[in-house]
Amino acid sequence: MPENLLSHIQNPDDLRQLDESQLPQLAKELRDFIIDVVSVKEGHLGASLGVVELTIALHYVFDTPNDLLVWDVGHQAYGHKILTGRKDIFHTNRQLGGISGFPKRSESDYDTFGVGHSSTAISAALGMAIASRLNGDFDKNHIAVVGDASIASGMAFEGLNHAGVTDANLLVILNDNAIGIDPSVGALKNYLTAVKEGKNPRQNNIIKSLNFDYSGPIDGHDIFAVIKELKRLKNKKGPKFLHLITTKGKGLKQAEHDQVKYHAPGKFDKLTGDIIFKSEENLPPKFQDVFGLTLLDLARKNEKIIGITPAMPTGSSLKFMMDEFPQRAFDVGIAEQHAVTLAAGMATQGMIVYCNIYSTFLQRAYDQLIHDVALQDLPVIFCLDRAGLVGEDGATHHGVFDLAYLRCIPNMIVYSPMDEIALRNILYSAQLGLEHPIAIRYPRGRGTVEHWQQPYEKLEIGKAFLLKSGTKAAVLSNGPIGNHVALALQNIGNPETIAHYDFAFVKPLDEQLLHLIFTSFETVITVEDGVLKGGFGSAIAEFSALHQYATHIKSLGIPDEFIEHGTVDELQRYSNLDVKSLEILFQAY
Amino acid sequence: MPENLLSHIQNPDDLRQLDESQLPQLAKELRDFIIDVVSVKEGHLGASLGVVELTIALHYVFDTPNDLLVWDVGHQAYGHKILTGRKDIFHTNRQLGGISGFPKRSESDYDTFGVGHSSTAISAALGMAIASRLNGDFDKNHIAVVGDASIASGMAFEGLNHAGVTDANLLVILNDNAIGIDPSVGALKNYLTAVKEGKNPRQNNIIKSLNFDYSGPIDGHDIFAVIKELKRLKNKKGPKFLHLITTKGKGLKQAEHDQVKYHAPGKFDKLTGDIIFKSEENLPPKFQDVFGLTLLDLARKNEKIIGITPAMPTGSSLKFMMDEFPQRAFDVGIAEQHAVTLAAGMATQGMIVYCNIYSTFLQRAYDQLIHDVALQDLPVIFCLDRAGLVGEDGATHHGVFDLAYLRCIPNMIVYSPMDEIALRNILYSAQLGLEHPIAIRYPRGRGTVEHWQQPYEKLEIGKAFLLKSGTKAAVLSNGPIGNHVALALQNIGNPETIAHYDFAFVKPLDEQLLHLIFTSFETVITVEDGVLKGGFGSAIAEFSALHQYATHIKSLGIPDEFIEHGTVDELQRYSNLDVKSLEILFQAY
Repeated sequence: MPENLLSHIQNPDDLRQLDESQLPQLAKELRDFIIDVVSVKEGHLGASLGVVELTIALHYVFDTPNDLLVWDVGHQAYGHKILTGRKDIFHTNRQLGGISGFPKRSESDYDTFGVGHSSTAISAALGMAIASRLNGDFDKNHIAVVGDASIASGMAFEGLNHAGVTDANLLVILNDNAIGIDPSVGALKNYLTAVKEGKNPRQNNIIKSLNFDYSGPIDGHDIFAVIKELKRLKNKKGPKFLHLITTKGKGLKQAEHDQVKYHAPGKFDKLTGDIIFKSEENLPPKFQDVFGLTLLDLARKNEKIIGITPAMPTGSSLKFMMDEFPQRAFDVGIAEQHAVTLAAGMATQGMIVYCNIYSTFLQRAYDQLIHDVALQDLPVIFCLDRAGLVGEDGATHHGVFDLAYLRCIPNMIVYSPMDEIALRNILYSAQLGLEHPIAIRYPRGRGTVEHWQQPYEKLEIGKAFLLKSGTKAAVLSNGPIGNHVALALQNIGNPETIAHYDFAFVKPLDEQLLHLIFTSFETVITVEDGVLKGGFGSAIAEFSALHQYATHIKSLGIPDEFIEHGTVDELQRYSNLDVKSLEILFQAY
Repeated sequence: MPENLLSHIQNPDDLRQLDESQLPQLAKELRDFIIDVVSVKEGHLGASLGVVELTIALHYVFDTPNDLLVWDVGHQAYGHKILTGRKDIFHTNRQLGGISGFPKRSESDYDTFGVGHSSTAISAALGMAIASRLNGDFDKNHIAVVGDASIASGMAFEGLNHAGVTDANLLVILNDNAIGIDPSVGALKNYLTAVKEGKNPRQNNIIKSLNFDYSGPIDGHDIFAVIKELKRLKNKKGPKFLHLITTKGKGLKQAEHDQVKYHAPGKFDKLTGDIIFKSEENLPPKFQDVFGLTLLDLARKNEKIIGITPAMPTGSSLKFMMDEFPQRAFDVGIAEQHAVTLAAGMATQGMIVYCNIYSTFLQRAYDQLIHDVALQDLPVIFCLDRAGLVGEDGATHHGVFDLAYLRCIPNMIVYSPMDEIALRNILYSAQLGLEHPIAIRYPRGRGTVEHWQQPYEKLEIGKAFLLKSGTKAAVLSNGPIGNHVALALQNIGNPETIAHYDFAFVKPLDEQLLHLIFTSFETVITVEDGVLKGGFGSAIAEFSALHQYATHIKSLGIPDEFIEHGTVDELQRYSNLDVKSLEILFQAY
């Protein structure tokens, strides 16, 4: 048994003391370390396993953190974190107060750019490279590591298109494993596959046409080959592009075999690799499955129904429809802008399009939503998954801005179902001749209703409901956080004083009911799983101001700061949206 | 003198009665018609002159509106409008109540998709093409006409990447004239130029790599060649790509020669082509020039200053800095996403980046602003040109959502200068060690201050000012619309009752002053050149609700609808933001 190398490495300086011949052993140790920790602490597994050799090679060859390394998305950066001073706290990954699951500037000098959303690395690294030249540093290297799913996104193309006309010291490394979270799609993917298989002449490829010095493809797990090529590229100036072929999940058999499941497998047996089974009996369903199964059911009955996802068929559960109706359900890759305008184009031809985008990623298609959908008043149905606080993915991924950025857009309907049945019913209602675009936002994970497959009921657009009557204060909740309100009201000593209304529609508001509420109660309390500035509570304050009500308004929601990672429960507690905090508030009335 | 052909053409059916040999004459007549009207009525000239032959050929060969034609951006669609039933009302172009300057679904069945922002056509036409197949129509054609500046935008790439793996009947026509509003930039542009010059093998090009049936490049002014190729392509199935070479401004010598100026030249002499000179003596400067000249002045003194524009060097006046400091001022093309993250990357290296983006186009980079700039709290300086109502460009281009979609983002500073001096001072102040990102929004066109080049003054972030005292009501204005407030207050009989405050900072709000105001006045009136939902007035209503003030609030701004085209004056009147409307309101206090 050779001496453990990883235990002696606190940072890349230590790594650079090793002989090149020792690096395969280090790669094995690093892989084992990642598996050991992630098997217990959970997190993103497959991506980091796939770049173990590349990670070591980059820090071995380049002078990090002086040379600037940007990981695109950052799922693959666990090895990087472990080698750059965070080995001993790696077990706190994604936990409240622990290290972030993504590279983050405030965490380490080696994390040169905060990531989480895809396809930003080329632009960021190019900006750094241009700045370095202007700062008089002509030797510094700037490296963007980008996956093949991410490089197909328009933003990455924009970065390449600019870089190709500069003399910036930019090295783009394409980590080509033919998969993002789900398998990669699109014409570029087919082209890259042909290149890998030797079917395209390498000297006249797309990348070279954009004026990059292209090399590869080479085996990304052959650490000596990777190091040799990086050493060569290190001393070449200008924009360069290295095409590496890797295997996601490399080194753990099950992870290589089922790359989608082992992207973030939860707890697993580190020896066998088997995922540790959690009983799901008697649990309420995930909102995702309510979406996916309901859409499938509706699609069986209405052939005008289309489903679109930008690269999240598994995460969104659109895969149910894709499996049964491959001609009508589309994974368009990491291309939110295209997804939305594609939906608009289909809607002009009478299609009923369910465009499923995570709330945080709809920020990528904000203009398309305004300019191509809402302005033309096309009845596209946006299903905003992962709305509200998402938990361990943290600040980059919380879907907390959507209510604010959507309700300012004319023609939009904005709806947050309180539970699975409401989600099911709005999905049903939306295909019954909707006259405007709608955004339906729902959170990650399970709701509260076990028997959710009730007969469909048509919802009236803009209607709010009294859930519980009261005398002094009226709580107006939006979305599933209303279940916290209901629980809190069960626990307090003064339940008779507080009424509870489900305001699932943030737009249009149920103004008739609001007038009744504002003339009946001393205090209105709004509760939402979104930012306070500009959100649901803000809409209620606007209403009150417009109609000159003197009723007190108290608004609960996400404060004006970026919320870090932690469990959803912890983050809701931080934002005073947990049941206990609500109880304390309600007891004051 | 041959008979006038155009006078007999009301729609494409009439056009299709002509013999092919008559089409060159029709092209000349159509070109003359466009010149005749635009020389007097103003509008976008060069783009439409460049596609006269293509426009005729498309409607001649294809069965429009059954075949679906999407013009990208739409600056080039005047000929299309004239040939499709709008010849007799073309003189109302861009006027209040007249036809739109862009294709618009509500205006004509021939306008299959509303446009204005670039690079949407491929996605929209692909959506239509997929829908047609699902609707059982396998013969219908779907055509996207895209300029070379637009096709370099990431969204266009996303559309191509998806289309290449479909069997959709999609024809993408690249209208390659090497210019958008300003000359095209980027590696793809250089590649296309090489193709044009015969320096690239045509059979292995980028487009072909994306699985399109590529043909061209051919001369887009050779109407017979274009028709021949369109006829061939009409009967080919699947994704096709035709590369046309055209000249922007074709047929008017000055427009061909100075393509930037003749993009939208204002009034000109239709015989000589000379632009009709308007005296600019003694006029206040354009906000654009205040930005451009101030930035140039600051850049001379501070070598860390960088300027970025996505494809608007002339419109934004960044060209002043680009001319003197080409190494530090960048036109990145139509690539707003890249522009913002590039700025973020530069900011990590200590650069002071002024990223100038039209307000309506920052919607294209909303996620990058949140995820790459604000989340990392990088002090990027966003200069949002064309904020507020922009006038004749209409609904697609009004910059009215920015206050709402920006103020919900943590860390952002949001500022609207009331006049040129304030713009100059905030540009100056922003480079003195700003600790957060800032968005500075200002309108198109001239302000109110002739002698604007006053000594620089450092502005305190978040500070509002009393402009005029009063007894009953306090008007809080944001931005240049405050000048309307000031004028109205000069005209009314009860000026002593109304105070006026300049709340240039929408975020952070001057809360100290707000407390004073809310405890001193019966009524607070907010005035903004942006949407009421979620905007400045909404922020004031939130403040009032949070602190339980009973003060009446009245908010003036843009109502919750898409505002059409017209002069800025007309549209402000429509929104009750003109001086007269303000007077009537103020007289009630």
